[in-house]
Amino acid sequence: MPQFLDTSDTGFETEFAALLTAKREDAPDVDDAVAEIIADVRNRGDAAVIELTAKFDRLELTPDTLAFSEDEIDEACAKVSDDDRAALHLAADRIHAYHARQVPEDESWTDACGATLGWRWTPVGAAGLYVPGGLASYPSSVLMNAIPARVAGVPRLVICAPTPDGVSNPLVLLAARLSGVDTVYRIGGAQAIAALAYGTETIKGVDKITGPGNAYVAAAKRRVFGKVGIDMIAGPSEILVIADADNDPDWIAVDLMSQAEHDESAQSILITDDAAFGQAVADAVTRRLETLERRAIAGKSWRDFGAIITVRDLTEAAELSDRIAPEHLELCVADPDALAAKITHAGAIFLGAWTPEAIGDYIGGPNHVLPTARSARFSSGLSVMDFIKRTTLARMTPGALRAIGPAAERLAVSESLEAHALSVRARLNRLNEAAE
Amino acid sequence: MPQFLDTSDTGFETEFAALLTAKREDAPDVDDAVAEIIADVRNRGDAAVIELTAKFDRLELTPDTLAFSEDEIDEACAKVSDDDRAALHLAADRIHAYHARQVPEDESWTDACGATLGWRWTPVGAAGLYVPGGLASYPSSVLMNAIPARVAGVPRLVICAPTPDGVSNPLVLLAARLSGVDTVYRIGGAQAIAALAYGTETIKGVDKITGPGNAYVAAAKRRVFGKVGIDMIAGPSEILVIADADNDPDWIAVDLMSQAEHDESAQSILITDDAAFGQAVADAVTRRLETLERRAIAGKSWRDFGAIITVRDLTEAAELSDRIAPEHLELCVADPDALAAKITHAGAIFLGAWTPEAIGDYIGGPNHVLPTARSARFSSGLSVMDFIKRTTLARMTPGALRAIGPAAERLAVSESLEAHALSVRARLNRLNEAAE
Repeated sequence: MPQFLDTSDTGFETEFAALLTAKREDAPDVDDAVAEIIADVRNRGDAAVIELTAKFDRLELTPDTLAFSEDEIDEACAKVSDDDRAALHLAADRIHAYHARQVPEDESWTDACGATLGWRWTPVGAAGLYVPGGLASYPSSVLMNAIPARVAGVPRLVICAPTPDGVSNPLVLLAARLSGVDTVYRIGGAQAIAALAYGTETIKGVDKITGPGNAYVAAAKRRVFGKVGIDMIAGPSEILVIADADNDPDWIAVDLMSQAEHDESAQSILITDDAAFGQAVADAVTRRLETLERRAIAGKSWRDFGAIITVRDLTEAAELSDRIAPEHLELCVADPDALAAKITHAGAIFLGAWTPEAIGDYIGGPNHVLPTARSARFSSGLSVMDFIKRTTLARMTPGALRAIGPAAERLAVSESLEAHALSVRARLNRLNEAAE
Repeated sequence: MPQFLDTSDTGFETEFAALLTAKREDAPDVDDAVAEIIADVRNRGDAAVIELTAKFDRLELTPDTLAFSEDEIDEACAKVSDDDRAALHLAADRIHAYHARQVPEDESWTDACGATLGWRWTPVGAAGLYVPGGLASYPSSVLMNAIPARVAGVPRLVICAPTPDGVSNPLVLLAARLSGVDTVYRIGGAQAIAALAYGTETIKGVDKITGPGNAYVAAAKRRVFGKVGIDMIAGPSEILVIADADNDPDWIAVDLMSQAEHDESAQSILITDDAAFGQAVADAVTRRLETLERRAIAGKSWRDFGAIITVRDLTEAAELSDRIAPEHLELCVADPDALAAKITHAGAIFLGAWTPEAIGDYIGGPNHVLPTARSARFSSGLSVMDFIKRTTLARMTPGALRAIGPAAERLAVSESLEAHALSVRARLNRLNEAAE
């Protein structure tokens, strides 16, 4: 059974604090191994990547077969059923439409002293998307990573998607093609991240790496951060549902299970203002767990990390939600907009009982790559912004420099940076000479 | 002397590649020491911070004196001269005006199928700014870090500014007050970063940490990244000046020196389409270096990492500039806007000879915290965006779910995530029952 908490109980604060800080992942210390792999790929390039792929993925590659050929991708795409293809197309179109609205405007203005200021946005030169292999090889993740990059105008977009034992997912390749990916490499792990960051003879380095991965991938991303940009270090998935009694307990139960089935370390929490409803949801989960295909995973996640919290009212629910800072937040209440207005920290909010979180995973339009492990306090889901960067612009006129230059000179002197001051003074002197 | 390169020389590519990859910093491996400090602060809180401050900064503190009192700040502010105070005020006002334009709009729209989509922006809960002590204790950096956070609406804003031997900089404290900082702690190093990330009895943890620091601070920021947000891992400063022959060589020389004087590992590069002008700038630098206060630092930076590159034309200059991806880029040419349009990767561009880079350091308005070490390829300078985050919003109607739900269900099935599919199906079934 999950934990049952009640804000009216005297022990609540202690229990809730424990829930917040529960360590859900045993992060194995792979840092030294990863450092070695990265050094190996930097030193030996393709040869290291090929050896490591043989070792970890039991797959023999050559420089010529590191990437899928166009023929192989054609062949894979042809295997996809019409229904799956149509669904993937609809998802791609909707994700594209949503992200197209995120492209920010360049700005330029001239202020009172005559200085022209502004900024402009440009795409990163190349992006590399990591797509896990095996069980968690999700075509939806390809769309969610690649489409924002394409909308941003990134000129070169590659994927690394390991294919353990040579097994690949045709839907992943179709999703890559749909979203305009240039090259798909069948490599994974820390060696793929190293190849993307530093380049090899065959694989050209990129400027930005995004996408989820296992502990090796996460440690490698942390290490190459700075040399290239990365998105985030993703943790196990979470959902928080705030639901009043006017809901079908079974809907809420499957919503909770849709996170729990991802991973044994996933976390599903219900907050309700009606204890009896909370119990009804717990019962519905128990029923669903009898038949769910992934009941072993979902059941363990629910037992170990699931929680049902009874609150006095929805304002209290909003306060707890901000302390949880959930990745996914469903508001199954009469006035979800009013409740959403009380909440500050959440990756994505799903408003009303007709909006199951799974809509956001696939087809709603917003990105499903979202901040986990309470990082919604300070970070956002993946977006076009992750694939562009801003250059600030400034242009002084002689008049503008005369107006504000002396203050700059003064501050430079106060910081003992004489050359800074002289660079302004040399120009001010010219203006003074001209005025004489 | 700096290096002289010429794109017409046969050896140019090799020399330029070496310039790009020159290791300018001997990053000492402080990772183990930093891990120990962080663990110590997590375990022992205030006591560890106080001991480490006594050890590294030779300063005895108590929990009550970890932060400057209001009286101490009043006293420090009173010491600042009227001229310095006026300059700092002008800088703060201009930085505020520039950053106020960066606040993005929330969005909400309803699409053809009836789904309401959008996003909204909210500030991080609390931000901690690191301000180095000693030589590099710059009031301008306080403004550049704190004002964007305040414009973002961050409700709690603290500074950690070490005061080795108890020596503090009144201008730093005035800058903190001007920009609305709530608390200034006189602690530094990895222990300050650990305290900001994890909190102690006295120091409440924050959600985002920004600001430059030494190798210990950088390693600590890398380690706490994920637990809290960080801005970037800053490297030594750089400037690239592209100048034609129609410039005063002495202006360009002091501009180059204004980066070189920061740090022996700073880098100043001139690209010009006139070799004789390049030589004239080199001569002017030599003259300036005879009297410059920080000539030891600037001279070493210039000799070790400075370069003058002669190109055939300005288009070639733009291409080289993008390979360098400079932190600061001055365009001292007849039509700087036209040249800027050819350039993709730069932290900040200063347009025209009347815009010395130092204007951007202090008073122009744009931020002076900018991507170093070629990271302008994928990242931006500090901005309001660093202190806010986006929550995506989605609301389905029954009709919208009927329109796009089946595709979500299909994709969930294709990914073997049954509960995801069921969470959509349960609702679709209700709609079908109602329709019957």
